Amino acid sequence: MSELSRIGVAIDSDLLEKFDRLIASRGYTNRSEAFRDLIREELVQKTWERPDSNVVGTVTLVYDHHVRLLNEKLTDLQHSHFHHILSTLHVHLDHDNCLEVLVVKGKAGVVKKIADALISTKGVKHGRLTLTSTGAGL
Amino acid sequence: MSELSRIGVAIDSDLLEKFDRLIASRGYTNRSEAFRDLIREELVQKTWERPDSNVVGTVTLVYDHHVRLLNEKLTDLQHSHFHHILSTLHVHLDHDNCLEVLVVKGKAGVVKKIADALISTKGVKHGRLTLTSTGAGL
Amino acid sequence: MSELSRIGVAIDSDLLEKFDRLIASRGYTNRSEAFRDLIREELVQKTWERPDSNVVGTVTLVYDHHVRLLNEKLTDLQHSHFHHILSTLHVHLDHDNCLEVLVVKGKAGVVKKIADALISTKGVKHGRLTLTSTGAGL
Amino acid sequence: MSELSRIGVAIDSDLLEKFDRLIASRGYTNRSEAFRDLIREELVQKTWERPDSNVVGTVTLVYDHHVRLLNEKLTDLQHSHFHHILSTLHVHLDHDNCLEVLVVKGKAGVVKKIADALISTKGVKHGRLTLTSTGAGL
Repeated sequence: MSELSRIGVAIDSDLLEKFDRLIASRGYTNRSEAFRDLIREELVQKTWERPDSNVVGTVTLVYDHHVRLLNEKLTDLQHSHFHHILSTLHVHLDHDNCLEVLVVKGKAGVVKKIADALISTKGVKHGRLTLTSTGAGL
Repeated sequence: MSELSRIGVAIDSDLLEKFDRLIASRGYTNRSEAFRDLIREELVQKTWERPDSNVVGTVTLVYDHHVRLLNEKLTDLQHSHFHHILSTLHVHLDHDNCLEVLVVKGKAGVVKKIADALISTKGVKHGRLTLTSTGAGL
Repeated sequence: MSELSRIGVAIDSDLLEKFDRLIASRGYTNRSEAFRDLIREELVQKTWERPDSNVVGTVTLVYDHHVRLLNEKLTDLQHSHFHHILSTLHVHLDHDNCLEVLVVKGKAGVVKKIADALISTKGVKHGRLTLTSTGAGL
Repeated sequence: MSELSRIGVAIDSDLLEKFDRLIASRGYTNRSEAFRDLIREELVQKTWERPDSNVVGTVTLVYDHHVRLLNEKLTDLQHSHFHHILSTLHVHLDHDNCLEVLVVKGKAGVVKKIADALISTKGVKHGRLTLTSTGAGL
């Protein structure tokens, strides 16, 4: 962790009051932490714009495990990219529906391709790639 | 405009350096201004979540003016909501395509409905509602 | 405009019913039009990912015209990019606040830079770049 | 699973060709599946707009486990909402950084509050709530 800088920020009192209310409603007890979170979110978004950035993401899939061969297909796909898939969590939502979350790591361009392949598989009801970060340098 | 508050924000030096590079690439010459913009964006998003908030938005429409009756339909729709539509700008993009931007003002719920009606009109190729603000209190 | 293809799409009856309700609430009277709009939105997003694509966008700015020199700065900025700015609409929201919408055309990378410069100008309370399309080929 | 409806959709041939290329690049081998995914995404977004809808989401957190008491705080928070947190996956990204993904289920309003509390905890570098679905009725 790097040393801490203390900077001054000039904000209209009205705007500051509104921001304080907003972040309180989100559970922040520390205003600096809210500012740092705004910064980090911008940086994470920016990183993902370059296909060769090192990123981490999560792929969330909801599917009906009764769909024939779906489970096999998803498992095969994951195996053929095992270098990029750090871990997978499987939750049984109800009798039919499963949720799977994969943690994916690698170049942004590659991670996007893997997520596309999983999400586009027939039988997957809903899929999303969530962009996050290796944490290094954040 | 309200008076200015000067607050201190504690940020890890590494993170601050990255943020400074990011905002420089976006043309900011003043770090406080970049922080204020991050705050205002959050507040604008939050305001639009409540259907009865007073908001301003812009509706952007791209369409082919050769589509039969399209222009008439869009004009009719706009007239029946003229209390909410402050102004409309029309640009001829090429021989076929027009772009129209409407400035819409009112309760968030109503503005969304008007935007939906315009965007869903057959012949409109692309439409977007952009969420912004009356500026009051920002 | 190109000829029309009629394609068949297989959809679970439940899902179709829900979709029909959703698009009805948005004002669609024609299901094919709703599908075409979903497609076009994806294509517009995709186009903006490549910096050298030809795109059209709108830049929405809300600002207090009392801020010293702000108007001059925004006008100067617009003039130095006049090749890319097709038109500008100015609305007086109240005694203090103005809304300006610019229609911007050019390579995606260039249009983004112009939008960044305008939005980051000190005194602009809220700014957004809305991604749309030249309409050609949509 | 409900029975299948076969509907006809009219699409300009140019637009269809572009869509086919786009979905091929995303790995779809079946056009109906791509359409169904577009529909489901809209439905999921819509569901989350009502605070009392039953939803499933994932909360992704990246943090430095060396931050004093952070792990305890996150674990405490999770325990006090254990009824809503189905499962948690923890990945060690490097010497310092951890990624945690929680599967959260409940009313949309409650799930958002839990996510806010976790994401706003001091020491969490990046956090995101990903909106998905129970799968029922999708």
